[in-house]
Amino acid sequence: MTGPNFADRMSSVHKSFIREILKVTQDPTVISFGGGLPNPSSFPILQISEAAEAVLRDSGEDALQYSTTEGYRPLREIIARRYARRGLKVDPDDVLITSGSQQGIDLTGKIFINKGDRVLVERPTYLATIQAYGLYEPQFVSVPLLEDGPDLAALEGALERGVKLFYAVPNFQNPTGITYALRKRQEVARLLNDHGTAFVEDDPYGEIRYMGEDLPPVKAWMPGSALLGSFSKIVSPGMRLGWLVAPRDVMDKVIVAKQATDLHTNYFIQRVVHRYMADNDVDAHIAKIKALYRKQRDRMVAAIPEHFPEGVQYTKPEGGMFLWVTLPEGVSSVELFDLAIKEKVAFVPGKAFYADGGGDNTLRLNYTNSGLEAIDVGIERLGRAIRRLMIEKAVVR
Amino acid sequence: MTGPNFADRMSSVHKSFIREILKVTQDPTVISFGGGLPNPSSFPILQISEAAEAVLRDSGEDALQYSTTEGYRPLREIIARRYARRGLKVDPDDVLITSGSQQGIDLTGKIFINKGDRVLVERPTYLATIQAYGLYEPQFVSVPLLEDGPDLAALEGALERGVKLFYAVPNFQNPTGITYALRKRQEVARLLNDHGTAFVEDDPYGEIRYMGEDLPPVKAWMPGSALLGSFSKIVSPGMRLGWLVAPRDVMDKVIVAKQATDLHTNYFIQRVVHRYMADNDVDAHIAKIKALYRKQRDRMVAAIPEHFPEGVQYTKPEGGMFLWVTLPEGVSSVELFDLAIKEKVAFVPGKAFYADGGGDNTLRLNYTNSGLEAIDVGIERLGRAIRRLMIEKAVVR
Repeated sequence: MTGPNFADRMSSVHKSFIREILKVTQDPTVISFGGGLPNPSSFPILQISEAAEAVLRDSGEDALQYSTTEGYRPLREIIARRYARRGLKVDPDDVLITSGSQQGIDLTGKIFINKGDRVLVERPTYLATIQAYGLYEPQFVSVPLLEDGPDLAALEGALERGVKLFYAVPNFQNPTGITYALRKRQEVARLLNDHGTAFVEDDPYGEIRYMGEDLPPVKAWMPGSALLGSFSKIVSPGMRLGWLVAPRDVMDKVIVAKQATDLHTNYFIQRVVHRYMADNDVDAHIAKIKALYRKQRDRMVAAIPEHFPEGVQYTKPEGGMFLWVTLPEGVSSVELFDLAIKEKVAFVPGKAFYADGGGDNTLRLNYTNSGLEAIDVGIERLGRAIRRLMIEKAVVR
Repeated sequence: MTGPNFADRMSSVHKSFIREILKVTQDPTVISFGGGLPNPSSFPILQISEAAEAVLRDSGEDALQYSTTEGYRPLREIIARRYARRGLKVDPDDVLITSGSQQGIDLTGKIFINKGDRVLVERPTYLATIQAYGLYEPQFVSVPLLEDGPDLAALEGALERGVKLFYAVPNFQNPTGITYALRKRQEVARLLNDHGTAFVEDDPYGEIRYMGEDLPPVKAWMPGSALLGSFSKIVSPGMRLGWLVAPRDVMDKVIVAKQATDLHTNYFIQRVVHRYMADNDVDAHIAKIKALYRKQRDRMVAAIPEHFPEGVQYTKPEGGMFLWVTLPEGVSSVELFDLAIKEKVAFVPGKAFYADGGGDNTLRLNYTNSGLEAIDVGIERLGRAIRRLMIEKAVVR
């Protein structure tokens, strides 16, 4: 008997490289800048426990029953209210609760992408979007990311040539840590509006800004777009709770797709997180996360020039969880990975974040899941590995 | 500006008819046999609360963090062990935790179905499978359900003509309540094996048998198939926790699809349900659910011949949550719905469960979410509405 006959869409997609890397880094003596994990010391464990107990005590029969596809209305209201403070007016009816913002990516792929459609992403872009959208078999097109957002001339050129949708992470992007400047947000919205191109704005880190000025989502200038958010970075990722904001016509399709996918998001957890948000000073909690991450970010940004050889570039993010390193041309981060593991430090090679190839000399570093001392030691080890590889490649003497 | 340009797959699928019906039945004076809700009085609220508290106290930082796509290993072990008692040997490595068994349907659609593929379902079949698979744009083909399972000659004919996969609910099917006899299970497996056809066996009600003899899943004779299960009916549906059992080659693809869809299922809830299952006598709990549902089922099965006119047929399920009513030819259950709402009783018209049309004279009744007295009164009301419609249609005098 032959094996099963899978759908064509499965032939192009493979298991996440990150996932495979994480297996290598199970060794506790390896300092890992590889994962994209929030710092667990920031989880409000006791408060979540109290919220769970209260929800089950006060409305257990309801909280454990099937519920609506859109999600728990009071939670959607809290989400809408928080956007108002960031310069975006959101109607709670335009919010749907998802199983993490990753599901928002999958759902927007499902409702928008036909096989062969040109889908525009940043260069580099979020790895799991390449995977999720990839299963709808588009043709990926990339727009280069500059320090303050996409290259506008390249963006306009791509839109002129015809694009079904643009997916972007304008705040503290995964993987680069890059944030769109205000003017770029306005220009991106104008170009997309002019061309009638759909926009999926993924914003899982938006509330984790610890430097610079808070900026409204691009959606503030583009009401027709879809905006994805997440509780993963402000409460807990293990709960898989995110949301999608979209106008009525898009929402109608998203509801159909969500219903077919899993009926609705875990309702008990929606109730628990709502109760947690209602009963606690969430802003004070987020302020603590930001203070913690800022210290970690500062330490890594300070350690890099001390330990990395000249010619290595890196970003200095104003929020989020990652920074991005660019090695000199011709120095491969995949080769570096093997050397680094010998030095007991791990990271994610950058090429996995390029939808259309390239990025061989780039890598992503996470700083939120390592202690300050481990950051120092890990960057020192990584610097040693980089230096060795650059000498091998005769890039430095 | 024109509206957004959606994917072709969205044009064929619409919001669930059931969902629209549920809106009509918000009126508390309406007795609803429409929804597919477990009885909330069966939810182990206190025990879930204790489990949540224990998990957060003992391993909060882990339980709230990101986790693996496959799911929490000890929970997968419990699932595997429970199958052993039902005559099926399952390796925990072959179990993946899903967001309800609905997600198992979506994931199997994603990995198997190309646009235009012939997908075989029962006639009638589970409504949400028509929706989930429908988004992968197959051509649906149906095999008639007899009292003890599918019509084998029709099944063989369909397989001969070429079918990509067969989806079925062999235990207490939604919507009909029909269960495959032992011989039918063996014959179905033999035919599918002979033709090398993929099989998705959806079994959300398998543990809720309150009459007759427990039978092994069809997978017992077809190791290559995918088997879906759920905690919705034995613990709580609001938690959206289910699973998929499949051999390595299928599982490899499912993991890729699951990762792209939502990274992993809510890990906190996996831990809570594991703790609940480990710390409590779950079999005693399930026995209570079965005793409750059996009483409700018996009451409805007794009330129907008392109140329905002659010529109306109905199933007598040995488990699960639904029974199926067939009106005489030419009597429309959609017309009946309007009359029934006037009598303050609701149900789901059957035609939504037919992937290729038909079933105008059928309807689904849920008995697990109504009290015994409400079942009597509701069936009496429904009988009145049926009689009136049959007189109108001159089917009875």
